[in-house]
Amino acid sequence: MRILLIGATGTIGKAIAAAFGTRHDIIPAGLHKARESVDLADPQSLRALFGRIGRVDAIVSAAGQAAFKPLGELSDGDFALSMGNKLMGQVNVVRFGLASVADNGSVTLTAGSLARHPEPGGAAVSLVNAGLEGFTRAAALEAPRGIRVNVVSPPWLTETLQAIGRPVTGGLPAALVARAYVESVEGRMTGQVITPT
Amino acid sequence: MRILLIGATGTIGKAIAAAFGTRHDIIPAGLHKARESVDLADPQSLRALFGRIGRVDAIVSAAGQAAFKPLGELSDGDFALSMGNKLMGQVNVVRFGLASVADNGSVTLTAGSLARHPEPGGAAVSLVNAGLEGFTRAAALEAPRGIRVNVVSPPWLTETLQAIGRPVTGGLPAALVARAYVESVEGRMTGQVITPT
Repeated sequence: MRILLIGATGTIGKAIAAAFGTRHDIIPAGLHKARESVDLADPQSLRALFGRIGRVDAIVSAAGQAAFKPLGELSDGDFALSMGNKLMGQVNVVRFGLASVADNGSVTLTAGSLARHPEPGGAAVSLVNAGLEGFTRAAALEAPRGIRVNVVSPPWLTETLQAIGRPVTGGLPAALVARAYVESVEGRMTGQVITPT
Repeated sequence: MRILLIGATGTIGKAIAAAFGTRHDIIPAGLHKARESVDLADPQSLRALFGRIGRVDAIVSAAGQAAFKPLGELSDGDFALSMGNKLMGQVNVVRFGLASVADNGSVTLTAGSLARHPEPGGAAVSLVNAGLEGFTRAAALEAPRGIRVNVVSPPWLTETLQAIGRPVTGGLPAALVARAYVESVEGRMTGQVITPT
């Protein structure tokens, strides 16, 4: 398969590329240092990416920023960034990207476990992740030409917890999270929230 | 209790006011024809409302617009309206309103069953409703002074289905939906998605 991987230079993105190995032809895209440059928060940048890459069998998005900070400290700008980047950016991957996906292909987005398992500091992230889960369930019903749409909702990455100095309990290594994306791309499910375990 | 009811002139709002009856002092607010005028999509209008009304024991929001139309017809503007109005408008009711709520008071928002039960045409509404459910679960963890935060997630209203000429199967009359808001305001739950049945 020919697969567009948005967020290819991130911790999850690199693990996804490794999990696909040499079975598929990966087109790496990202904000920095990837072969294809794209800014998820900029609709024109996304549209330009789809204009360049031609037909693909799958799109995988493992990208998007959202603000994690106490409710009382989340500013208008923090909500605008979270909703414009990780949430609407990935919604636009579906909206703008479907026309580039081959019949019976797939689109896979990334949400996160805060959607259903809240934590202090996670109000904006929970909003974004739950919104992505709700959007995916609905969008899958209307995707044309047998195209499947799923969202992977990973827990904290072990790598992230280590980087910010938190206990790694409950975390999952990116290499295990990546398996959920492989399952979405190579399997037959649609409209699913896939929770890596 | 002194209760601010945003969306007081809507079908659900009127039913909530009727369900509270004379037990509480209701401050009706809405875009049109309510005692207090407020535009949920306008942060300045919301802040001005909270500046005027003084201390309340509860805030109930049964307001907010979101676009219901086929995925391929949902425009950038439809998503912007849905996210700016029903979603961010109600998030701002919590953010800006908490300081006006008395100790151990409550804030109750409105999502909808499309959050978890998708239908064709509902991609933006599912996003908004699921986002509100996720936000509420998280915000409840951080609300100060014992303030509770819940969201009511009603199915289609019988009244709405009748108005648009759809079969009323699966719908619920606004009078029954209103009971969920009473339960949220007068009960002890927090961080809950309340599904009227």
